[in-house]
Amino acid sequence: MSDTATLLIHCPDRPGLVHDVTGFIFAHKGNIIDLQQHIDPVENVFFMRLEWSLENFTLEKSEIYDRLQPMTRRHEMQVGLHFSTQRRRIALFVSKEGHCLYDLLARHEAGDLPVDIPLIIGNHETLRPAAERFGVPFHHFPITRENKLAQEAAQINLLKEQGIDTVVLARYMQIISPAMIAAFPNQILNIHHSFLPAFVGAKPYHQAHERGVKIIGATSHYVTSELDQGPIIHQDVMRVSHEDQVHDLVRLGRDLEKTVLAKALWWHAHNQVLVYRNKTVVFG
Amino acid sequence: MSDTATLLIHCPDRPGLVHDVTGFIFAHKGNIIDLQQHIDPVENVFFMRLEWSLENFTLEKSEIYDRLQPMTRRHEMQVGLHFSTQRRRIALFVSKEGHCLYDLLARHEAGDLPVDIPLIIGNHETLRPAAERFGVPFHHFPITRENKLAQEAAQINLLKEQGIDTVVLARYMQIISPAMIAAFPNQILNIHHSFLPAFVGAKPYHQAHERGVKIIGATSHYVTSELDQGPIIHQDVMRVSHEDQVHDLVRLGRDLEKTVLAKALWWHAHNQVLVYRNKTVVFG
Amino acid sequence: MSDTATLLIHCPDRPGLVHDVTGFIFAHKGNIIDLQQHIDPVENVFFMRLEWSLENFTLEKSEIYDRLQPMTRRHEMQVGLHFSTQRRRIALFVSKEGHCLYDLLARHEAGDLPVDIPLIIGNHETLRPAAERFGVPFHHFPITRENKLAQEAAQINLLKEQGIDTVVLARYMQIISPAMIAAFPNQILNIHHSFLPAFVGAKPYHQAHERGVKIIGATSHYVTSELDQGPIIHQDVMRVSHEDQVHDLVRLGRDLEKTVLAKALWWHAHNQVLVYRNKTVVFG
Amino acid sequence: MSDTATLLIHCPDRPGLVHDVTGFIFAHKGNIIDLQQHIDPVENVFFMRLEWSLENFTLEKSEIYDRLQPMTRRHEMQVGLHFSTQRRRIALFVSKEGHCLYDLLARHEAGDLPVDIPLIIGNHETLRPAAERFGVPFHHFPITRENKLAQEAAQINLLKEQGIDTVVLARYMQIISPAMIAAFPNQILNIHHSFLPAFVGAKPYHQAHERGVKIIGATSHYVTSELDQGPIIHQDVMRVSHEDQVHDLVRLGRDLEKTVLAKALWWHAHNQVLVYRNKTVVFG
Repeated sequence: MSDTATLLIHCPDRPGLVHDVTGFIFAHKGNIIDLQQHIDPVENVFFMRLEWSLENFTLEKSEIYDRLQPMTRRHEMQVGLHFSTQRRRIALFVSKEGHCLYDLLARHEAGDLPVDIPLIIGNHETLRPAAERFGVPFHHFPITRENKLAQEAAQINLLKEQGIDTVVLARYMQIISPAMIAAFPNQILNIHHSFLPAFVGAKPYHQAHERGVKIIGATSHYVTSELDQGPIIHQDVMRVSHEDQVHDLVRLGRDLEKTVLAKALWWHAHNQVLVYRNKTVVFG
Repeated sequence: MSDTATLLIHCPDRPGLVHDVTGFIFAHKGNIIDLQQHIDPVENVFFMRLEWSLENFTLEKSEIYDRLQPMTRRHEMQVGLHFSTQRRRIALFVSKEGHCLYDLLARHEAGDLPVDIPLIIGNHETLRPAAERFGVPFHHFPITRENKLAQEAAQINLLKEQGIDTVVLARYMQIISPAMIAAFPNQILNIHHSFLPAFVGAKPYHQAHERGVKIIGATSHYVTSELDQGPIIHQDVMRVSHEDQVHDLVRLGRDLEKTVLAKALWWHAHNQVLVYRNKTVVFG
Repeated sequence: MSDTATLLIHCPDRPGLVHDVTGFIFAHKGNIIDLQQHIDPVENVFFMRLEWSLENFTLEKSEIYDRLQPMTRRHEMQVGLHFSTQRRRIALFVSKEGHCLYDLLARHEAGDLPVDIPLIIGNHETLRPAAERFGVPFHHFPITRENKLAQEAAQINLLKEQGIDTVVLARYMQIISPAMIAAFPNQILNIHHSFLPAFVGAKPYHQAHERGVKIIGATSHYVTSELDQGPIIHQDVMRVSHEDQVHDLVRLGRDLEKTVLAKALWWHAHNQVLVYRNKTVVFG
Repeated sequence: MSDTATLLIHCPDRPGLVHDVTGFIFAHKGNIIDLQQHIDPVENVFFMRLEWSLENFTLEKSEIYDRLQPMTRRHEMQVGLHFSTQRRRIALFVSKEGHCLYDLLARHEAGDLPVDIPLIIGNHETLRPAAERFGVPFHHFPITRENKLAQEAAQINLLKEQGIDTVVLARYMQIISPAMIAAFPNQILNIHHSFLPAFVGAKPYHQAHERGVKIIGATSHYVTSELDQGPIIHQDVMRVSHEDQVHDLVRLGRDLEKTVLAKALWWHAHNQVLVYRNKTVVFG
């Protein structure tokens, strides 16, 4: 992977924004590799993703953020700055179903997912062997109604100790409480096994079968305090038939869940996702 | 089109049903062209669609239904009997948007939709020129809160006079009242511009934009007394992006609406749709 | 539609290109609405599409191209400059099948295709009534082996007289000869009824059925001197089954052909397509 | 899994075939669960898949095939007879890329692939650790131009010893020689990383990138003596963009390869695939 920096920016629109930002890059001998910019004409908001090569860049990585401040303040910009060499550190949360876990671990091993995965957390022991096969430490945090808050506090400590920046709920069948959400704002990815906003909550495949839909879906979104209401990152769907029983939908849907979550995580890890209000801009 | 008959059957499952029905066909020298049969193992219901050639069949069309009675009574079968030579007679209901109307009329003219379209009903005059271009009589029934029931009664009379058996709501922006639904049970097809059950009711594209979904959809269903809750016949979806404004979704969605409605009507016209409870079995 | 200008640029990559171009826009008080830029790292080529509002722009439209020259020469840029107010003038070429023609005319009438369609050319009289229904002049140019070159010369004259800039082959079943291609370089869109490069040439649905594929496709591309080998603009596919005969593929495929051609034309008309070597960059 | 038997039949069409076969089932107290039958009207061939419950069936499994003989001979039927309790025994052939292997092993472990996988064969040692993680014996058969035939003979012996009935080439980058094909006719599944018949042979993603296609695909087919020309079981596709380099296509395509191969193997393992000439009938 080449040595690049990425800016994710949104701010009120006005003339000259692109010129200003690219002027900063050019002044320090950066070469822009990829730039995508558009305006929301209804909200009058400017959105931009800009990635540039650091090969001949004359600023140190550690200086860049501070040096951007005068410009970002002047334009009231919200800015995210990321470096390709600084890989995301991911914690995978699992329960009993292993399809998303295996899928992510196999992608990671094949070099198709440029993140670090220092640990896996399970509320059951079921997937410890899967974690161990891939040499990733597995931490068991059994959850009961009584211990839930204490266990989550312990999880947060562990995540912070390990320098985790992103949590992936890989079919973790627990509702995340506010403390965890506050500790990782827009950094917790969930996979919901329906085409949101259809079939919110429990047993979406049962709901889908009951309604007689002809297509099922899966949705990856950032977790917010409202269940299944966070900003959607990615969705995909699959055709089903009247012959498919609930257990068929469950089985077929796993392929959607795996690929949708992996794709969302890919975009997140490549700093292609910008959250604005309760939606995402995914720079493709 | 060849001269065939089609049976659509459902009943409690028991051994020998296929053998019994095919025995009836064979005894009268019919040749089966297409047979699809399956069991719902949870409900223990038998579903079958059977189409056979009438070329050497020894019964008159008019005799078949009566001659089937002993068997269908014995097995408590619900039976639909249709003949390929007896084309569906369709009334198209429209409002102001013409994309579904043009699409269906162009398919019909090209010979791709083997139905008769003796009339078009509009609650506005907007699409009269479109109807006239294709030589189909256009009837204007302006609807107000006051005249709605009276106008629908007049519509039902017109449809009955014209021997209409199927009503297609081709973006007809009125809620159909119970009398019409009762007059054409499971014979009124609607196209809803969302992926049901997401975004029921008015302005689904606005709702979709507000929620920030990454995929939009369209759904064709039979109209029942509950708004947008009838048995789903067909659905399809399309990927959209954060750059698409509501008016883009409206424009893009028209392609879905056209093809989903046309496909549902194709299946309906070919007697491939069986309604059971609030779902459809679509024999593909 | 708002009053905007669009630049499509490619050139050898070097630092500062975006800054230079956006500097030109900013210096004349333009506001950028949409900018997409990327590098081909293998070829080291810079690609950009930039659209800006002309509302407060201080240059006349007629001046812009000349004033860009110093910059474009300095960077060896290939530049296309387009204005939203200058609608494309399209000639539709048809033969006997009307599905693409009706589809484009209905979109146009609904305001979904912001182009002018001053004329339709047919090598048969079959679709004259369709053209007349929508009030578009229809010109009949019967083609034989003997008169082909003379007829194409007459067609070119007519197109030039009418100020046509884009030719759309809407299932026009004739091979276009070099003079026409030279007169409209990368301005002739074709729809081929297969998933290119599979099933080049005649009767692609027959070829697809013979091979037993499970998916059929359609491809819209710019016409070049090699049959079905031009730069691909858009493709789409549809699942089929072993029960589909050739005539079913023909019927089903029409929906693909219509939507793929309409989408390609939409992108072309909105100046979102840049041709580089024998490929397209479609700025989505 | 319930105890069922499945018949796959094709023969020249004539009246009474369904009645005859279902009469055999009914006479021995079988209950039909699923029946699909259609005619190819061009070739006048009858195709049928019939699955019935053996719960109260009065014949032993071992008797059924012989007892069918009078009927199948009378109608010149080609018949396949399979039992749900007799799971397919699969050998996975791999080379260096593990994505299909991991995908199939994870599905198998999750109970989503009702087959036995007694062994994995690799022409490299690369994936031995992957096999060992899932506890499946790994056999290394290094292949050179000189030893190829001898190694394949040894492979065939091993497969026969182990009672293997199906070979799955899970990105095995070797051409299979005629002896192997003859030993497992229509029982060797391959995954080709293109949308066949486009991009036959080596490096299909390079070919796709060179041609500038907007969609890539994967195809699973039975292996025959002509390279990439065998009967197609399943295909799927994915949209790509001009920004995707060859290595992106390789990475993205893996998701297609995994799901297409797994789906084809699912249908094969459930006796839903009938080969006729060089095509498949997939009873969905």
